[in-house]
Amino acid sequence: MRTEFNFINNLKSKYSLESVGDDCAVLPKDGKTDLVLTADLLVEDIDFRLDWTTPELLGHKALAVSLSDVAAMGANPVWAMLSIGVTERVWKTDFIDRFYEGWFMLAKQFGVELVGGDVSRTPDKIVIDSIGGGGVKRGEAILRSRAQPGDSVFVTGELGGAAGGLMLLESGFRYADTNKKKNELIAKQLRPIPQIAIGKQLSSNGLATAAIDLSDGLSSDLHHLCRASGVGARIYMEDIPVDPNLHELIMPDDARIDLALHGGEDFELLFTGNEENISRLNIPGVMHIGEITANVGIIELTRAGKTTVFHPLGFRHF
Amino acid sequence: MRTEFNFINNLKSKYSLESVGDDCAVLPKDGKTDLVLTADLLVEDIDFRLDWTTPELLGHKALAVSLSDVAAMGANPVWAMLSIGVTERVWKTDFIDRFYEGWFMLAKQFGVELVGGDVSRTPDKIVIDSIGGGGVKRGEAILRSRAQPGDSVFVTGELGGAAGGLMLLESGFRYADTNKKKNELIAKQLRPIPQIAIGKQLSSNGLATAAIDLSDGLSSDLHHLCRASGVGARIYMEDIPVDPNLHELIMPDDARIDLALHGGEDFELLFTGNEENISRLNIPGVMHIGEITANVGIIELTRAGKTTVFHPLGFRHF
Repeated sequence: MRTEFNFINNLKSKYSLESVGDDCAVLPKDGKTDLVLTADLLVEDIDFRLDWTTPELLGHKALAVSLSDVAAMGANPVWAMLSIGVTERVWKTDFIDRFYEGWFMLAKQFGVELVGGDVSRTPDKIVIDSIGGGGVKRGEAILRSRAQPGDSVFVTGELGGAAGGLMLLESGFRYADTNKKKNELIAKQLRPIPQIAIGKQLSSNGLATAAIDLSDGLSSDLHHLCRASGVGARIYMEDIPVDPNLHELIMPDDARIDLALHGGEDFELLFTGNEENISRLNIPGVMHIGEITANVGIIELTRAGKTTVFHPLGFRHF
Repeated sequence: MRTEFNFINNLKSKYSLESVGDDCAVLPKDGKTDLVLTADLLVEDIDFRLDWTTPELLGHKALAVSLSDVAAMGANPVWAMLSIGVTERVWKTDFIDRFYEGWFMLAKQFGVELVGGDVSRTPDKIVIDSIGGGGVKRGEAILRSRAQPGDSVFVTGELGGAAGGLMLLESGFRYADTNKKKNELIAKQLRPIPQIAIGKQLSSNGLATAAIDLSDGLSSDLHHLCRASGVGARIYMEDIPVDPNLHELIMPDDARIDLALHGGEDFELLFTGNEENISRLNIPGVMHIGEITANVGIIELTRAGKTTVFHPLGFRHF
């Protein structure tokens, strides 16, 4: 079966779509600024479950996933639109008011203005389309497609926490659990923080050659970046920043590492650039995890001196 | 129960949303141009039925409804994004390829570029969020909110055809029916044509004081326009351009007129302005159907010399 990624690539080539395939589309706005645009569809029981979250957290996450795409371009979020469809039963509750409260809490934090959207009825499930727009200095948006052999590979933050939070939710744990560390994992899943400030820092000094946000998981997203750039990569297992709270989960160490490698929705940034230049920026929490190579499409994973080929096992819808 | 319109008005006032509530948001783009933005959510079995349409026609309509919002601002459509969620069963068919074929046929006609969107899985129904962006000369977008007492009220085209087409579909008729007139009605429902050229003509000469597209139905959309402008209106029944193909439907004349007054989805334009100025434009198919009054929020309907208050009976989700 074709994957969603193949489908989009085919569409791109069939209809000559120049702006499709990055975290955001980049369009000229004025002489000094480019406009970035993104849309993220969230569907009940596919992307979220109502009994695992609250309306406020869902509102937060709906906006956060789009802001994370804006962050991956190194852009500044400016406005958003929100299309939401709910059942008549949900409409009669306070769900939608609480959803917007959570949405606006995050919007306020980043100065994002709601400018439009749509409200619709659905027969069954809740659907949300989160649309984000932002600005970046003309020509300075960080694309997925400019990584070069010899660049180093970096990630922000710690990885696997959101996937660990998902496992806890699946096992019956809930947000506001009394265990602080477990709750931090669940918060990573339900209340991700878009890395806007780091994205802007990376674009404004022009030192990142390519970037993507970690939504599907490190293995998948690194493949996306390498495919777009026509390069390969080598990653050093020992340098992957595994979320320390994952020690709360009773599992073998390797399973924890797998969560960091393949677990989605951390919404951290994965980016490439010259190691010396990036290190000089001294951004807290940025880890150097590997190098870009000329082995087109091949991602290698080095662990205790042994190198294996690393397959994308992250999230995909199809 | 609150309606979706009340909900949006409350949201607008609670969070001081300046740009929400028109057919499109209008944001400054550069010194000469404003950006217009719109989103329309279409949900299977609420907004469309798969056994009534084809994937190509659905792709056409998904784009057309957003282009119609762009037309209502007097703007020129430029780019679009499309978020689409389908079930795994639908993903395995040629539905999505055919959907995009219909979408791109219309996009090509209006020079619209697909710049992004999202593809997702749904547990059950197809959902589509159609996002449109366009440009209009700075300050020349036609808002809903500038109609003045003394303005005349105009509509483009003929009304009620899309609602008549819907009735035919509900009775088992299908697109490509051998009866030409019935088929024209069904085409009005499934393959609406956005009135881009007329919208642009109206904005470029600055003669329309307010405009809205007829998506919910004349009675509802005129109420929206009057509420936004803080005015009322009087409409002359005899001047409403009832779609002549409605004579194909076996029903009393009054029911046909009701389809023209309350039936949604014709995607014609309703606009206001000085009668002499608008008549001088000589736009084919534009009908003068009434006047704007100072009776805030009251729409009167004059028929055979008798005037009654006219209540909005058009489409709403909630």
